[in-house]
Amino acid sequence: MIKQKVSGTVYGVILNDHASLQKIGSLDEAPYKGAPKAPVLYIKPANTRVACGSVVELPAGADSVEVAATIGLVMGRAAGRLSSGNALDAVAGIVLAGDLSLPHASYYRPAIREKCFDGSLPLSSVKPLSDLAGLVLTTEIDGQVVEQRSLADLVRAPAKLLADVSEWMTLSQGDVLLIGVRYMAPQAKAGSTIRISAEGLGSLNFTIAEGVAA
Amino acid sequence: MIKQKVSGTVYGVILNDHASLQKIGSLDEAPYKGAPKAPVLYIKPANTRVACGSVVELPAGADSVEVAATIGLVMGRAAGRLSSGNALDAVAGIVLAGDLSLPHASYYRPAIREKCFDGSLPLSSVKPLSDLAGLVLTTEIDGQVVEQRSLADLVRAPAKLLADVSEWMTLSQGDVLLIGVRYMAPQAKAGSTIRISAEGLGSLNFTIAEGVAA
Repeated sequence: MIKQKVSGTVYGVILNDHASLQKIGSLDEAPYKGAPKAPVLYIKPANTRVACGSVVELPAGADSVEVAATIGLVMGRAAGRLSSGNALDAVAGIVLAGDLSLPHASYYRPAIREKCFDGSLPLSSVKPLSDLAGLVLTTEIDGQVVEQRSLADLVRAPAKLLADVSEWMTLSQGDVLLIGVRYMAPQAKAGSTIRISAEGLGSLNFTIAEGVAA
Repeated sequence: MIKQKVSGTVYGVILNDHASLQKIGSLDEAPYKGAPKAPVLYIKPANTRVACGSVVELPAGADSVEVAATIGLVMGRAAGRLSSGNALDAVAGIVLAGDLSLPHASYYRPAIREKCFDGSLPLSSVKPLSDLAGLVLTTEIDGQVVEQRSLADLVRAPAKLLADVSEWMTLSQGDVLLIGVRYMAPQAKAGSTIRISAEGLGSLNFTIAEGVAA
């Protein structure tokens, strides 16, 4: 039983696995002009967090959502300028996360509406930190396995990622760093039930519901 | 004296004034394909907030910073799906804000490092909400006026902006919504002292210092 709760801001990172880099293809042309040299971050603020068992209502007009399974590192203390060697000492535990995004074609504007709508980050309870190197995350939609991803494929392992981010951004106790989502994760429709699981970590379950206009 | 403190996440918006839209020029070509139809948001998490009188140390390697003067609306209660008519009822007060960004050429990647480094959001104490329509914000660097901007120039007035954002994102008590920063705001060098002021709101003062490697 881990006492640390998730209480702050959640930070996520894209393109932190070799499969996603391969899928997105060359980033050499404009406007990117080269593959990323530093972690490419996004933020999921407090309004996005919901617990296991939640019904997530999509924003009005949306009828499907991308479901990216990942693991979050939960900070046990304020963490700035950590090194790869000691970074995991600041981690109190881990969570299973289902990072939800509305499908969007353009990556050229900050995708705040698409990634930060209310309830767009179901999180499991906090579990003890374990070795993540060979962990496999399984995503099921309505009982069918739609994705399995292995964390053996990460570009930056959790300790390295946390060190690189904390170099210029101090994380607070209760903040969470998601270790990476797959590019073009599976999509679920309103009405679907999702289950994300990993050996030794149990599962995270939630349901998608259609949004209604205000 | 306003009792509400800033305690949560700060949200900001770009391109919410006609002068900035004019300065950035046509957005009709790829990759933008048209001027924004919804507020273009960014997030300043808790690590960015510092008080009046602070010394802001730049990230290692940076020697100048863009200083965008703006006003923040401080939420007095949780606020979701507000209408323009009642949105300001959820606002407990306002702050003067100096939104700091590292100069960066590309707008094609999420500018988290550039906008979210530790201390990159000096905020004044919370003042009573007043009529912002004709307010003029003055920015001085080392005693010289470098910018004056009038809030008469906003595309979305504060109530409309808050209504549009809260349609899909519930803001928490203590969260702040910045009402817009100017495109290409003045730059300050390490060692400079900044003063942002407005009639009736006093001033916000801070100093920029050079970053040191970890």
